[in-house]
Amino acid sequence: MNRIDGRKNNQLREIFLERRFQIHPAGSAIIEVGNTKVICAATIEDKVPPFLKGTGTGWITAEYAMLPGSTDPRAVRKSTGRAAEIQRLIGRSLRAVTDLSTFGERTITVDCDVLQADGGTRTASITGAFVALVEAFTTIYEEGKIFPVKDFVAAISAGFTPEGETILDLNYAEDSEALADCNVVMTGAGEFVEVQITGEKNSFSRADLNGILDLAEVGIKKLFDIQKNALGDLAWHVGQIA
Amino acid sequence: MNRIDGRKNNQLREIFLERRFQIHPAGSAIIEVGNTKVICAATIEDKVPPFLKGTGTGWITAEYAMLPGSTDPRAVRKSTGRAAEIQRLIGRSLRAVTDLSTFGERTITVDCDVLQADGGTRTASITGAFVALVEAFTTIYEEGKIFPVKDFVAAISAGFTPEGETILDLNYAEDSEALADCNVVMTGAGEFVEVQITGEKNSFSRADLNGILDLAEVGIKKLFDIQKNALGDLAWHVGQIA
Amino acid sequence: MNRIDGRKNNQLREIFLERRFQIHPAGSAIIEVGNTKVICAATIEDKVPPFLKGTGTGWITAEYAMLPGSTDPRAVRKSTGRAAEIQRLIGRSLRAVTDLSTFGERTITVDCDVLQADGGTRTASITGAFVALVEAFTTIYEEGKIFPVKDFVAAISAGFTPEGETILDLNYAEDSEALADCNVVMTGAGEFVEVQITGEKNSFSRADLNGILDLAEVGIKKLFDIQKNALGDLAWHVGQIA
Amino acid sequence: MNRIDGRKNNQLREIFLERRFQIHPAGSAIIEVGNTKVICAATIEDKVPPFLKGTGTGWITAEYAMLPGSTDPRAVRKSTGRAAEIQRLIGRSLRAVTDLSTFGERTITVDCDVLQADGGTRTASITGAFVALVEAFTTIYEEGKIFPVKDFVAAISAGFTPEGETILDLNYAEDSEALADCNVVMTGAGEFVEVQITGEKNSFSRADLNGILDLAEVGIKKLFDIQKNALGDLAWHVGQIA
Amino acid sequence: MNRIDGRKNNQLREIFLERRFQIHPAGSAIIEVGNTKVICAATIEDKVPPFLKGTGTGWITAEYAMLPGSTDPRAVRKSTGRAAEIQRLIGRSLRAVTDLSTFGERTITVDCDVLQADGGTRTASITGAFVALVEAFTTIYEEGKIFPVKDFVAAISAGFTPEGETILDLNYAEDSEALADCNVVMTGAGEFVEVQITGEKNSFSRADLNGILDLAEVGIKKLFDIQKNALGDLAWHVGQIA
Amino acid sequence: MNRIDGRKNNQLREIFLERRFQIHPAGSAIIEVGNTKVICAATIEDKVPPFLKGTGTGWITAEYAMLPGSTDPRAVRKSTGRAAEIQRLIGRSLRAVTDLSTFGERTITVDCDVLQADGGTRTASITGAFVALVEAFTTIYEEGKIFPVKDFVAAISAGFTPEGETILDLNYAEDSEALADCNVVMTGAGEFVEVQITGEKNSFSRADLNGILDLAEVGIKKLFDIQKNALGDLAWHVGQIA
Repeated sequence: MNRIDGRKNNQLREIFLERRFQIHPAGSAIIEVGNTKVICAATIEDKVPPFLKGTGTGWITAEYAMLPGSTDPRAVRKSTGRAAEIQRLIGRSLRAVTDLSTFGERTITVDCDVLQADGGTRTASITGAFVALVEAFTTIYEEGKIFPVKDFVAAISAGFTPEGETILDLNYAEDSEALADCNVVMTGAGEFVEVQITGEKNSFSRADLNGILDLAEVGIKKLFDIQKNALGDLAWHVGQIA
Repeated sequence: MNRIDGRKNNQLREIFLERRFQIHPAGSAIIEVGNTKVICAATIEDKVPPFLKGTGTGWITAEYAMLPGSTDPRAVRKSTGRAAEIQRLIGRSLRAVTDLSTFGERTITVDCDVLQADGGTRTASITGAFVALVEAFTTIYEEGKIFPVKDFVAAISAGFTPEGETILDLNYAEDSEALADCNVVMTGAGEFVEVQITGEKNSFSRADLNGILDLAEVGIKKLFDIQKNALGDLAWHVGQIA
Repeated sequence: MNRIDGRKNNQLREIFLERRFQIHPAGSAIIEVGNTKVICAATIEDKVPPFLKGTGTGWITAEYAMLPGSTDPRAVRKSTGRAAEIQRLIGRSLRAVTDLSTFGERTITVDCDVLQADGGTRTASITGAFVALVEAFTTIYEEGKIFPVKDFVAAISAGFTPEGETILDLNYAEDSEALADCNVVMTGAGEFVEVQITGEKNSFSRADLNGILDLAEVGIKKLFDIQKNALGDLAWHVGQIA
Repeated sequence: MNRIDGRKNNQLREIFLERRFQIHPAGSAIIEVGNTKVICAATIEDKVPPFLKGTGTGWITAEYAMLPGSTDPRAVRKSTGRAAEIQRLIGRSLRAVTDLSTFGERTITVDCDVLQADGGTRTASITGAFVALVEAFTTIYEEGKIFPVKDFVAAISAGFTPEGETILDLNYAEDSEALADCNVVMTGAGEFVEVQITGEKNSFSRADLNGILDLAEVGIKKLFDIQKNALGDLAWHVGQIA
Repeated sequence: MNRIDGRKNNQLREIFLERRFQIHPAGSAIIEVGNTKVICAATIEDKVPPFLKGTGTGWITAEYAMLPGSTDPRAVRKSTGRAAEIQRLIGRSLRAVTDLSTFGERTITVDCDVLQADGGTRTASITGAFVALVEAFTTIYEEGKIFPVKDFVAAISAGFTPEGETILDLNYAEDSEALADCNVVMTGAGEFVEVQITGEKNSFSRADLNGILDLAEVGIKKLFDIQKNALGDLAWHVGQIA
Repeated sequence: MNRIDGRKNNQLREIFLERRFQIHPAGSAIIEVGNTKVICAATIEDKVPPFLKGTGTGWITAEYAMLPGSTDPRAVRKSTGRAAEIQRLIGRSLRAVTDLSTFGERTITVDCDVLQADGGTRTASITGAFVALVEAFTTIYEEGKIFPVKDFVAAISAGFTPEGETILDLNYAEDSEALADCNVVMTGAGEFVEVQITGEKNSFSRADLNGILDLAEVGIKKLFDIQKNALGDLAWHVGQIA
């Protein structure tokens, strides 16, 4: 069976990922996954949340929001439970590949602002935020030290269609129809950081879960190449030990 | 290696689950999982969110909050991103086993208020909320109709210890140490509704994930018996076809 | 004339008061007055409000809230004017029997959360909060010092029925019918701390007021015994001079 | 012993009360009690709170706030628990002398804004709000109907000094020193509507309470004359039966 | 053509401006421009906004609000975009004639509270706030130093009528009809501080703008005399060099 | 004297303006003025604010916000007084060239979100919002009717440098240094819609004002060409009479 946009089941949408989209933040990137477009900006501040004060350890946090014109109908400007959930996921994903003890009592805030939404905004945010984060760290990196980011991290969605197909990188129309929807976050070393699978319209078996994870793994490996390409010379910092 | 409280790796904490804890709501339950204690109250209102108006379909939503004295240090009374994430999970889990087309344009709000927290408050909330939900539906159920709740649903956590053990039903001390933490929501039919696995301190392999799911499945099956016991005569409504 | 629940005019409802209901706060209690149930948790923090900084004096404050399932219809989770009024009353009542100069620049916050409401939640909160407060102070008390709590304090309601009866400890149904409703807070020494009498449906004479105060005095004396019983060995600290 | 401003113990401060201070509201008044100055504005809207919809009954509510320049230090513009408590008291006092069934499904909002504070702002608000309320009702009153306001209502404070004196109408300096502080709301018929007596620094006996009430009664009777004078021709409406 | 209230096109309404209206703030004034009445209170605090900490420079800010009874219909108590816009304009106008480097790291907050609105509340606020500001500075002024206020500042509105007349000092009825509405802020030296001209119903030419500015200049010069009169002996401080 | 970026005093920065930047809103545009970049999205809803209900008249409103990464330091996500002021200006400017009686009881909301800020974000927002607005109206326009937009509208800033130069289209560095800053909004017919000129650091004369307006007029005429180019075939709708 054919997908709405003619893709194969295991095929990603066309992806554009470029760093330095904004001039002010320490790190920034724009990621386009089909019609989904997200700006990621990483800012460094010399302070940490109260629970880290005096520990010498830094923090990474994220904020996620949708521009009013990013959806139809218009997205009202207010903080939602969904946004809270997504920004916590982005923050955990980035912290999972970062050594928080290596950059002092600083906070990196990664803002992911959705310019246009067509499914997969949270996974696109993670993939793009990683590039902004690496770029930001290079602005404070001192030669000969451990680079704070230990490995690549990227994310993709996968799910089942009502026709029983397992498909990769769902757009909005596919996501609305899907029986189960999975977001997978994975490291460059091939291990999982986070797996979230939800079957609001249908429950699913262990076999279903395994099929989805297989597909996600294929997709994420391609994302690492796209991230490396966007980082260019900055890519070699990742995982670098002093 | 022994667990802090002497349990086996695949052993649940002592669980107490009783319905009708509060007299005012249509359905109510208290669940105690070791030192974790949650009150669940299901209230029925004759209205639905805007997106369902005129569809003839009902809705189930949840609210989750911690009493100030439930934790040390004191939990400040304010809505957090974590609470938003948890209440969305509870709502999805309950909707997954409910036929929303069977009870008209009504909203069931299930309030999960944590009296005391010692790990596993979100999974205890789901397990207890199910009992309150079934009790609430019996107050509007008309003989000969389809009962809105199609199957049992319950949830448990599992995780890895730094020593490489896979353990079931983590208390707060275990959760703080765990390398990865998984929340599994499952139906009476043995299928998954939601799997969320997070490795903030460590990434994890497919084999790790499978080990955790095996353990969770064992635990959840015991929870169904505890739910049936708490529901008593009301249990037979679940999954009943007119 | 008989009361709804068969009590005599000067009779309290059945009262259950137990300390150490929650394990995390420094002091905690649950109080049940008939169907009214309130959890009281006293937490100690090493800071004071701005107006006390540098004075060496401590502070006692209270927060009061109703769980959504505590009433019918459901109590929406939001701060109300009524809650503000009640938590200020609880705070004043506790401060009236405490020597704020004896425990340094610390704040004790007493959270009163209503699990179930059937009239008299504010007076039950004061009576229960006192037990939580004493328990909390014992955790920081040093032998040979003055104990901060100088005397017992408890509270009860009384009112007139439309039939002209003066009754003690009104439940919700009685309170809704009452022409005037009075909340009395009294010390162990038999003096008043606060008297609030309101005649929204009817004004009242000096003689009416005196009749109500007589009844309240009778009720509160019984509450002191119940508080002593709940405190057990901790009770002798109260009013103890170094 | 002499009072700070040379008054006798049972003497009110100089009082100025005038209606029609603002041109826009249906009713308005300014009241000055010594240096305390409050503007009262009564507005009529053709709607009632949800709990009264369809009952044919009206509602009276109040809002109370302090202008930033009314106190030293500056009063920050925000809603406080104290303001919530006071505006609820004003609303109850006005409703106590009004027949809510006589003016249809309308809400009268009485705004009490403190221009300058020197003690007694809540009692001045009640006394002034009454005048604004009567004026407002005359704008919708139809000849031959029952006038909604059944009786006069006014309020005053009284208290004990540390020297054991019972004094009337405390200014801010006296209030700050007082061992107990009482607010009394009374009807023209000489009955109480509300008595609130608080002994934050000291508890008090029944005899103390009686002494305070005697004094308050004397003061309030003078306020009724001042209200009648301010209302002029409008005064005869009060308590008028069709 | 005659104006509603019989004024000539270049005629101000009757203006009353008096300082020391409130006793608590360091500076205070009441200004009445026809039926428009505004209280201005200037408070001094020993702190500055974050961006000025450590610079030795002070700050002047303003808050603007309408009392609920100031308009018909009743003005709801909440912060609006319009109020934000106006209070920023007041702050800029006062800062334009003040040397912020002369009074240390202090903040002067000028609260402009509208008691009654009949057009021109923002310009009346600026004219009155100036008097309160000067009065406030005299309380901290040390002989022989530079007085912080360098020049007078006042403001007035002007506009076009649909009949093509250019008129000064519009009341509410005139403002509602006007094709274009202009607010002009000017210094004692005759230069502009701020010109805001808006043609929501109609665009306007350069000639129109010049006509309006001519009229405003005439009006503002009269306001300086009124300010000097209200300041009395304090007026000579303005622009005084050590 | 040379400007920072080598421009002549009367020279605009390089401008890029393109419609249809986002696929979901009825109208959308991106405008880049040098490093300043703003997305404008116009959404149509079938409802009007309360004050227009039943009048048959539509409404145009605007929202303005800065993305966190648009400035250095990071712009915190919260509504500010400055944003309120700007979005009111955008709304007024668009309404000035629109016939609100021609498109029924609908509201057009134009969201202006600043991706990157380098001075002139409010004027860029107006210029870009116009294009999005016209595009949005074409989606509901019926042949033979009056097109709601009657004329072009665009905006630019101009100001004085400390060296006494009058310059057009200030970037952030120039704006920070400027003695006076002016925003001019003008129609295609060459009349003003809004002139706002502020001299926080310096007052200014009538001659100064005229010099600034001359420069602004030159700049805005070039903006009309850029708008026409961006609108392409849609441009002829503007000002079209049925």
